[in-house]
Amino acid sequence: MRTPMTLPATYYADADHFRREMERFFFGAWVHVGREEQIAKPGDYLLVDLLGESVIVTRNEAGKPRAFYNLCRHRGTRLCDKATGHFKGGKITCPYHAWTYGLDGALLGAAHMDETPGFSKDKFPLRAVAADTWDGHLFLNFSEKPVALREQLAGVWEKFRPWRMEELKLGKRVTYELKANWKLIIQNYSECLHCPVIHPTLKKLSHYMTGDNEAPRNDYLGGHMTLNEGVASMTVSGATKRPLFRHLSDDEKRRVYYYWLNPNLLLSLHPDYMMTHTLWPKAHDRTDVVCEFHFHPEAMAREDFTADDAFEFWDQVNREDWHVSELSQLGIASRGYTPGPYSHRESLLHGLDLVVTGELPA
Amino acid sequence: MRTPMTLPATYYADADHFRREMERFFFGAWVHVGREEQIAKPGDYLLVDLLGESVIVTRNEAGKPRAFYNLCRHRGTRLCDKATGHFKGGKITCPYHAWTYGLDGALLGAAHMDETPGFSKDKFPLRAVAADTWDGHLFLNFSEKPVALREQLAGVWEKFRPWRMEELKLGKRVTYELKANWKLIIQNYSECLHCPVIHPTLKKLSHYMTGDNEAPRNDYLGGHMTLNEGVASMTVSGATKRPLFRHLSDDEKRRVYYYWLNPNLLLSLHPDYMMTHTLWPKAHDRTDVVCEFHFHPEAMAREDFTADDAFEFWDQVNREDWHVSELSQLGIASRGYTPGPYSHRESLLHGLDLVVTGELPA
Amino acid sequence: MRTPMTLPATYYADADHFRREMERFFFGAWVHVGREEQIAKPGDYLLVDLLGESVIVTRNEAGKPRAFYNLCRHRGTRLCDKATGHFKGGKITCPYHAWTYGLDGALLGAAHMDETPGFSKDKFPLRAVAADTWDGHLFLNFSEKPVALREQLAGVWEKFRPWRMEELKLGKRVTYELKANWKLIIQNYSECLHCPVIHPTLKKLSHYMTGDNEAPRNDYLGGHMTLNEGVASMTVSGATKRPLFRHLSDDEKRRVYYYWLNPNLLLSLHPDYMMTHTLWPKAHDRTDVVCEFHFHPEAMAREDFTADDAFEFWDQVNREDWHVSELSQLGIASRGYTPGPYSHRESLLHGLDLVVTGELPA
Repeated sequence: MRTPMTLPATYYADADHFRREMERFFFGAWVHVGREEQIAKPGDYLLVDLLGESVIVTRNEAGKPRAFYNLCRHRGTRLCDKATGHFKGGKITCPYHAWTYGLDGALLGAAHMDETPGFSKDKFPLRAVAADTWDGHLFLNFSEKPVALREQLAGVWEKFRPWRMEELKLGKRVTYELKANWKLIIQNYSECLHCPVIHPTLKKLSHYMTGDNEAPRNDYLGGHMTLNEGVASMTVSGATKRPLFRHLSDDEKRRVYYYWLNPNLLLSLHPDYMMTHTLWPKAHDRTDVVCEFHFHPEAMAREDFTADDAFEFWDQVNREDWHVSELSQLGIASRGYTPGPYSHRESLLHGLDLVVTGELPA
Repeated sequence: MRTPMTLPATYYADADHFRREMERFFFGAWVHVGREEQIAKPGDYLLVDLLGESVIVTRNEAGKPRAFYNLCRHRGTRLCDKATGHFKGGKITCPYHAWTYGLDGALLGAAHMDETPGFSKDKFPLRAVAADTWDGHLFLNFSEKPVALREQLAGVWEKFRPWRMEELKLGKRVTYELKANWKLIIQNYSECLHCPVIHPTLKKLSHYMTGDNEAPRNDYLGGHMTLNEGVASMTVSGATKRPLFRHLSDDEKRRVYYYWLNPNLLLSLHPDYMMTHTLWPKAHDRTDVVCEFHFHPEAMAREDFTADDAFEFWDQVNREDWHVSELSQLGIASRGYTPGPYSHRESLLHGLDLVVTGELPA
Repeated sequence: MRTPMTLPATYYADADHFRREMERFFFGAWVHVGREEQIAKPGDYLLVDLLGESVIVTRNEAGKPRAFYNLCRHRGTRLCDKATGHFKGGKITCPYHAWTYGLDGALLGAAHMDETPGFSKDKFPLRAVAADTWDGHLFLNFSEKPVALREQLAGVWEKFRPWRMEELKLGKRVTYELKANWKLIIQNYSECLHCPVIHPTLKKLSHYMTGDNEAPRNDYLGGHMTLNEGVASMTVSGATKRPLFRHLSDDEKRRVYYYWLNPNLLLSLHPDYMMTHTLWPKAHDRTDVVCEFHFHPEAMAREDFTADDAFEFWDQVNREDWHVSELSQLGIASRGYTPGPYSHRESLLHGLDLVVTGELPA
């Protein structure tokens, strides 16, 4: 039997290869961009920037998420330049010549264009980007003819119901800027063989040999690890003052579930909180990672609520992970790099490679 | 009748297209680089940097403007690195091995070269760039065989005689660094449809519907707007303490003339001052704009002279214009951009596009 | 007889040409990277960064220099990120999963890999880069099948024995970051025609017409200059408190020897100290230069020892040289540049050009 080997350097160190990967995995599929609560009311908006593509994500009068390329159909002017906001009166107005659009993208007003031969407002609505939601998470799809989100997420659509993710609210957000290819971050997330080496605090809470992974799939990779005896959750102390999510089974209350949802969401479900990492590739060797901690509103309503016990624990682990991921990026980019052997405990990484090369059966 | 549409994104967002445009419009024609008063006496010099090409612009003993690539014919060393100065004794000396040239570019001295077989000073004069002037403005032409400046400027050669531009002197200069394609700045300059939306101060002085444009031409685009009743000039107050230019007609004293001279001069003639914008493209998405205010020496000699009433008015308008021009650059670079419709009040912009594509009849 | 001319701009101003040059002169030959004393004991190490290629240079238990690409054979992780250090217990350990290597590169330990089918430690030693020494200088060679160092340095192998370079120790190091092609620095070093123009202090110590050069060769270029009467060495005062190197002949005690060793070592041997410039090309128009001053340990042991009299003299001369080299880079990159004529006193520069073009007979 042949030892599975890591991918050639091109997959991590080549700018052209990166652009092709972005077209396929990010501009050709549903990407995770945030949470529904960020556009709570009709007219609220959020700007998304995916590799320089600015998108307005808003909610229409009927309460549905809608997304549009952030530019005017007149002369291409960027419409919004604040990261979040609210469209007053449900109107999106261009700052240049005051062309005005509704929350569904229809062009409502355009000064002096009525006098222009051949012009019709109907022909110039904002250009839409597909937007949809799953359990409180927001997704966009830049494809001309996107598959349904439910189709892309088929394997997990009902999987995490016990956590009631749609009920959770943001407690803490931090953004990390990494000098590493986006896939190295997923690889780092997909094995705990490195945990005893670089995570002294993590190994006290959850032993790296307790991991149990599902077989690799094109839509997700993941599994769970078991908390050590006496440990209630992944926090600085290993204890938690938060009630555990009430719909979890006894097994689920003793485990942390770690899942990568293709392409850019790392979903880490704890007994009392949800951690998400959203990956924003910037270049073949740079990725921004937005790490968020979400809690049940009842826990957040308590006087003694804090997100810091979870955040501080993971912030340290994150930084340890980012450091080795950046070291991997540096080494792989060398002319001295050749593919190396995966151990049998790195099967998810080999699985990810097969997803990336298109060799994993559908 | 078809609605004229804006150009494809390539014209604004592609680095290769930009380089081709630079060869044609900037290195293949006369470009505006400054004013004659900057090299008032023989031996005075000014360095011009056009897209990294450094040129020495000086005045020879006969009082004629001369320009040379800023490098020694020996080993290519840059000769001058100060922006302005004076060549003492009419000698341009290389800082490396002291090769010495005259103000007409002739090689006068080169140590140890006389002992070098086959060498002759005659073969190694400085390499010239064509230099000429019009109404006090300085122009360069990098072509091997440039047309006469008068030919390029035929349409305006006599047009602005009443303003006696050659008599005017610099009162104020400011440089803006824009993140926008050079043509977006010309487009912004060529319509006032945006004025009521973004220029609250301008619309008080001159109504955007008073504009009267000439038919688009390859050598220039422009027209005039009329000052509102009670307004003497474009200043913070709308008043001016400066005498109006004495050779203007009554109509000319009530108007501001706005002209783009292909490729990089925006000439704004007011009843009492001249404003110029010189465009210095840096990249497909970056342009430096040098904005200057020029006045009649008699006005400048007065005790109460100030350039600030004009400068402060236009500085605010400029910044409003630069902001939307940068927003246009951002939007046009998006994959969501498609050409949009021009209104009938944007005919000069469509004209500019035809100049750029080469479709406007000569 | 035709006057020899400088090379076309491509050789200095083109990024692709630069990459090809790097493959040939730097990755295809022995390059100077430091001094043996930097890895005095077994397990000491030094990181070398050549154009982004990080190499660990260490000394094995037998005292031989060894070098390895700085990356783990498992998943490519960079092994070390501190510039210098010592491998405790003679073990090189990866920070990610603790794979462990010996000082000769053998893989000694790899957790969980024994359970991995088909895996064998023998197959995954660190990837070696050839390392060798000459008279105390350290060299690396990235070629798959390098020639012997002695072969590359044949012409100088015994040439500088009287200076006993292997006995000398570092007294001072300074790094300069130049905006100039690496070859312009060698050219500047290879003629003193510019000395009377830009080096007022140097010309007091050594007259530029005293230079005597060897015929150009592919492996080195150089010659010597004679110290002026009353001058003991190149120092701020022209005097020195250091004893002269004891094995020098009387002639050698009155001269400074200046040699370029292809590709990146400038060796300047004074009667009482050795100056080295090591060139680290970064881009076609950027080079880092490490300038070091080395002395005999007996001189360094004296109470009144200082390296500053030599350093301060050369620091000023260096900066004068870097300035004109940067001006040359700027001028040569211009579209106005054409090859210019070398004087008969610039024969080494023409020789260098022939080495670069491959036209100098072997």
